[in-house]
Amino acid sequence: MPAAGTSDFSRPSGRTPAQLREVRIERNFTRHAEGSVLISFGDTRVLCTASVENRVPGFLRGKGEGWVTAEYGMLPRATNTRNDREAARGKQGGRTLEIQRLIGRSLRACVDRKMLGERTITLDCDVLQADGGTRTAAITGAYVALVDAINWLVARGEIKPKGGRTPVFGAVAAVSVGIYRGVPVLDLDYAEDSDCDTDMNVVMNDGGGFIELQGTAEGHSFRAEELAAMTALAERGVAELVDIQRAALAG
Amino acid sequence: MPAAGTSDFSRPSGRTPAQLREVRIERNFTRHAEGSVLISFGDTRVLCTASVENRVPGFLRGKGEGWVTAEYGMLPRATNTRNDREAARGKQGGRTLEIQRLIGRSLRACVDRKMLGERTITLDCDVLQADGGTRTAAITGAYVALVDAINWLVARGEIKPKGGRTPVFGAVAAVSVGIYRGVPVLDLDYAEDSDCDTDMNVVMNDGGGFIELQGTAEGHSFRAEELAAMTALAERGVAELVDIQRAALAG
Amino acid sequence: MPAAGTSDFSRPSGRTPAQLREVRIERNFTRHAEGSVLISFGDTRVLCTASVENRVPGFLRGKGEGWVTAEYGMLPRATNTRNDREAARGKQGGRTLEIQRLIGRSLRACVDRKMLGERTITLDCDVLQADGGTRTAAITGAYVALVDAINWLVARGEIKPKGGRTPVFGAVAAVSVGIYRGVPVLDLDYAEDSDCDTDMNVVMNDGGGFIELQGTAEGHSFRAEELAAMTALAERGVAELVDIQRAALAG
Amino acid sequence: MPAAGTSDFSRPSGRTPAQLREVRIERNFTRHAEGSVLISFGDTRVLCTASVENRVPGFLRGKGEGWVTAEYGMLPRATNTRNDREAARGKQGGRTLEIQRLIGRSLRACVDRKMLGERTITLDCDVLQADGGTRTAAITGAYVALVDAINWLVARGEIKPKGGRTPVFGAVAAVSVGIYRGVPVLDLDYAEDSDCDTDMNVVMNDGGGFIELQGTAEGHSFRAEELAAMTALAERGVAELVDIQRAALAG
Amino acid sequence: MPAAGTSDFSRPSGRTPAQLREVRIERNFTRHAEGSVLISFGDTRVLCTASVENRVPGFLRGKGEGWVTAEYGMLPRATNTRNDREAARGKQGGRTLEIQRLIGRSLRACVDRKMLGERTITLDCDVLQADGGTRTAAITGAYVALVDAINWLVARGEIKPKGGRTPVFGAVAAVSVGIYRGVPVLDLDYAEDSDCDTDMNVVMNDGGGFIELQGTAEGHSFRAEELAAMTALAERGVAELVDIQRAALAG
Amino acid sequence: MPAAGTSDFSRPSGRTPAQLREVRIERNFTRHAEGSVLISFGDTRVLCTASVENRVPGFLRGKGEGWVTAEYGMLPRATNTRNDREAARGKQGGRTLEIQRLIGRSLRACVDRKMLGERTITLDCDVLQADGGTRTAAITGAYVALVDAINWLVARGEIKPKGGRTPVFGAVAAVSVGIYRGVPVLDLDYAEDSDCDTDMNVVMNDGGGFIELQGTAEGHSFRAEELAAMTALAERGVAELVDIQRAALAG
Repeated sequence: MPAAGTSDFSRPSGRTPAQLREVRIERNFTRHAEGSVLISFGDTRVLCTASVENRVPGFLRGKGEGWVTAEYGMLPRATNTRNDREAARGKQGGRTLEIQRLIGRSLRACVDRKMLGERTITLDCDVLQADGGTRTAAITGAYVALVDAINWLVARGEIKPKGGRTPVFGAVAAVSVGIYRGVPVLDLDYAEDSDCDTDMNVVMNDGGGFIELQGTAEGHSFRAEELAAMTALAERGVAELVDIQRAALAG
Repeated sequence: MPAAGTSDFSRPSGRTPAQLREVRIERNFTRHAEGSVLISFGDTRVLCTASVENRVPGFLRGKGEGWVTAEYGMLPRATNTRNDREAARGKQGGRTLEIQRLIGRSLRACVDRKMLGERTITLDCDVLQADGGTRTAAITGAYVALVDAINWLVARGEIKPKGGRTPVFGAVAAVSVGIYRGVPVLDLDYAEDSDCDTDMNVVMNDGGGFIELQGTAEGHSFRAEELAAMTALAERGVAELVDIQRAALAG
Repeated sequence: MPAAGTSDFSRPSGRTPAQLREVRIERNFTRHAEGSVLISFGDTRVLCTASVENRVPGFLRGKGEGWVTAEYGMLPRATNTRNDREAARGKQGGRTLEIQRLIGRSLRACVDRKMLGERTITLDCDVLQADGGTRTAAITGAYVALVDAINWLVARGEIKPKGGRTPVFGAVAAVSVGIYRGVPVLDLDYAEDSDCDTDMNVVMNDGGGFIELQGTAEGHSFRAEELAAMTALAERGVAELVDIQRAALAG
Repeated sequence: MPAAGTSDFSRPSGRTPAQLREVRIERNFTRHAEGSVLISFGDTRVLCTASVENRVPGFLRGKGEGWVTAEYGMLPRATNTRNDREAARGKQGGRTLEIQRLIGRSLRACVDRKMLGERTITLDCDVLQADGGTRTAAITGAYVALVDAINWLVARGEIKPKGGRTPVFGAVAAVSVGIYRGVPVLDLDYAEDSDCDTDMNVVMNDGGGFIELQGTAEGHSFRAEELAAMTALAERGVAELVDIQRAALAG
Repeated sequence: MPAAGTSDFSRPSGRTPAQLREVRIERNFTRHAEGSVLISFGDTRVLCTASVENRVPGFLRGKGEGWVTAEYGMLPRATNTRNDREAARGKQGGRTLEIQRLIGRSLRACVDRKMLGERTITLDCDVLQADGGTRTAAITGAYVALVDAINWLVARGEIKPKGGRTPVFGAVAAVSVGIYRGVPVLDLDYAEDSDCDTDMNVVMNDGGGFIELQGTAEGHSFRAEELAAMTALAERGVAELVDIQRAALAG
Repeated sequence: MPAAGTSDFSRPSGRTPAQLREVRIERNFTRHAEGSVLISFGDTRVLCTASVENRVPGFLRGKGEGWVTAEYGMLPRATNTRNDREAARGKQGGRTLEIQRLIGRSLRACVDRKMLGERTITLDCDVLQADGGTRTAAITGAYVALVDAINWLVARGEIKPKGGRTPVFGAVAAVSVGIYRGVPVLDLDYAEDSDCDTDMNVVMNDGGGFIELQGTAEGHSFRAEELAAMTALAERGVAELVDIQRAALAG
């Protein structure tokens, strides 16, 4: 495993191995949703809205708990060549379902559902432009939209904070890592993603704990030390993302 | 029929009866599509992309003609309360199909399909935020995306202009008109749309010809003179929109 | 715009520009439905049944109002070449949904839904044979089936007329108009429909008010004076249709 | 098993046990299809059209054989209470699929598919009004529509008869039989069908051979001698139906 | 019709015309279901599970009766060449629906649904390996699973037997019969099934009564005496199957 | 993190933390498929068949490469309570799609697709009985079915080994690991799976390389040292599984 920074190594974007793309978070991007965030990881742009509804799915009815769920979509021409519109094909593909299940699980990991009460918060993550890392951008942005929606509930007096705490505990963010030309790199863009040996999506909280880890060897299998190098990079990336989330929420 | 401007009449937005909302057209909003336009009619914002593909539907194969078609979607939280995601429900609703058929027919009215050659241009119109008039904004924005895509084909030498003309002839734009509290008004927003007697969508070309006209009496039926007043307003509104399209394309 | 009756103009059917096809209305065509009408506009034959059910859609539950809705279908071989059966394809096409929405809106325009009470009347319009104008024939026939169904409710004492009036106020009928070889013509048959410049469907009430207006420029765009000529023809055609409806209901 | 004609036995319709309902066959009921038959078994009315297409399903391509298939549908209000429209529900139910498979198999039993050549004949059987026995009426009527379509092909010279024979050999008709209040009866109407112990649909050819036999014990199981009595009745009923088919085709 | 046992007649399997394949019934094949049976008719192997649920379909709610229903499936590679997975294609085919309706009706014929109470028993019949006769094996095996599930309810005291009887009365089994090379044979395997003139599935109870009879002439039509010969064979085969069911339940 | 083997720790099954359940592999479980394996991880039983077809998906046509793909299903009563049949619901759920994508990717990681040639091998993994770990059992069993299918191709001379090698290189197996009551454990059964803090599925090859890694924090997030402990356990488990695969293939 070549050291990051080896002289003959370069990323297509010119970034260093441990460098995130420019991340921007624009709150209140649309006006109807209780939380609405446009997040960019470089050229990847995802609109994340949080919608509050006073009902829960059947399996939770009458249990005094809330639910947090996600839906994911990609506009047909978010990508380099046009993809079929899933609504027109009549079903969501396996990749879509997999991603929206991941987003939902990730965000439930930071919500006290008892305290939320019998409400559902749906996080719609719609990719306006894709350049790799749409699922990690979606999770990172959806967290901010979720906080805005919870704060909206608190501001209206519908949820009373306990000991100064709202139903959201901690922060959640996600980033991809991979082995690109033998070097562990952070936050792969499309050019790297389509040409790397291993691709891993890592969801962590602000305490440095792992929430989700999904790694795939695209070409060669990877070894325990590569795994350790990648997770270390991810830890660093998530810490930066959590800072960016905080700054946006403070903004 | 009270005259527009009657002293006790006012629109929720404070506009005069013949006044459009602020219209903004942002070209190259996303980077992959051959044409990509974010159009706003006030708070209604629609992302219109034009995608060029070198194939035609089965019924045109081998005929030496191209095709122009449209798909329409609304993000689940583009509206005041969240709507089901059509991809998740497994089908596009009747309203969606009706609108995308309208957009497709409207834009085919300004394209020389022989000159386009065996290509399909798909106009994806996705509503990011809805405040009434999404279909008219979509048609007006999709026209600009279409021109950008055609010019991209011309610039690459794939289509040769004839006598200085590309396959797009003229311009197409659309606006809604209605009878609100007895007064004919232009470009209804959601507050007016949900409370008006008659709602009509008008698609016209830059020569003042009608391409599509769809009027519905929501409460009382309307009469020939009201129809004439509404179409006159529409003519005026479309003329303004065509100017805005031209300015955007010149920009 | 050539005057109707210009010497060198003729319609494929030999009709004059303002002449309807022969219209026949046969009530009680089938025996189970509360209203059952076979309507013919020339060779276009549509079976319209009205079914009364003591329930309303979810959005109306508990509001003390009724609902009137429509479904439209075409038998696979109603047309010159066989079309796929929509039930076998697993979905209704955009054209079908558009037409059934139009029929439903048109008939709701003549029903007092409060007076109807918490009932749904479904108008099934199934085309047995198509020769142009199936949607206008469907609306015109469905009105008669609707009146029969309402009268059946009144006869059974389930609805009490107020001041001699039932929940149906006025009459609704529909006809197509178009510009065929430059001449405005009434009630286009298939031969004209597939070869005309403009095609417009007009739904009106017996007071001469417009309920729905849907015009499409197939070839050239149309101008305000052509629109006026077409709507004038439509007004005349609808008046004749309303007379035919009345005669059928009196029969 | 009481003898047919036992003094205290009567059918709801007043028919004798071995009596068919009035059967009427109206050819050329619609004008587009190559064969179009409206058949009535009493109040059961089924429109059967035969459509010729110059293509075969994938599994027969290039084999020099034709195909005969059927589709079945019931208008939503063909029955006493309204049924959901299968096209709107998005799928054909099990009963529909079962019936259309039966109709297809039955008619393939009288067609020389080699002689038919690479063509498909689709028999659409749409029930306009139901009063029991829709599948047997459909088979009996579809046979006539099929013969008309084959004769249309012969008349156009597209199929040359061999030794005076067309691709249709013999005749096929169908009838139901059952045990009603202990008595074997022929051609059950809805009142009998919903209240009988055993219901059997029998498809036979004009040579007295069985093509399909589908019997169901609704209440008590049935015994070999009841089976024999029912099939004897069916034989008699089919012979009458074949005569009626012949008369209609000669008419 | 040659006598069974004619010297020059032989079945592909070497069986005599009236000989069943080896039938094996393995109870408790899986551990979760209330009844779980792996049944083999020679190489045909079907896993039949019975699941008890304390709810009934909508049309039975509040009527104090239970329901017995069936679902049928075939693993994609149960057959010689792979079939599409129905879940992936998005719908169950006509053959599947037809078979599961048959299984459901057959088993409801031996259940006292009042005594069952407001419960549903679902019989899932999944074909692990197919060699002809999957539906008859499914019915025969599902009966054993059903008895096990009912006995489980009785053992838990949820159903109290009346006069020593449980809600299952009698036994139900099924077998196929056919005319193979002119000879009536019992229990066709795939080699015979795909090459026979007539194929009939017969469901009977232990009292020798017919419950379902479905015969199809694949090549030539069949005659009354062939029908009688086939049903006599079936009677004999079902009697053997009922003995095997009893032995398995006693085991 | 308590040490494995801490005195007060016990697994529901009585296994030690690093102990696999009993694994059994039965080849040729069904007779039609080119590879057919029933694999058991304790009470989890999955039937894995490998089907060879001489065609490839559209995106590979003409490229001289083969394809390996998987489909996953669970019989409705494989689980403790009955699940809806996906074929009846009309779509595969997100979990199913996610698992079959994982199986497909995992097995493609050990196949030389160029050497396979233009063939598709489909691995159908159908769960007959579920007790946790169905996806890891499926991958481990599917590998054996895949080898059998490849060897079948080699035996028939359709693929020629190169240098003694077939298109399968190395071995692939999978196992779950998790943190159960604070202790890292191997191969979770359902009782553990539904009550653990972290659940991770690990796919590895026989060289100790990672192919897929999917970890989810169900309750608390997990830390880097827990991750390392889990992957070390997985490595040990996969090594055992590869030995069992080898023994089965040698048997």
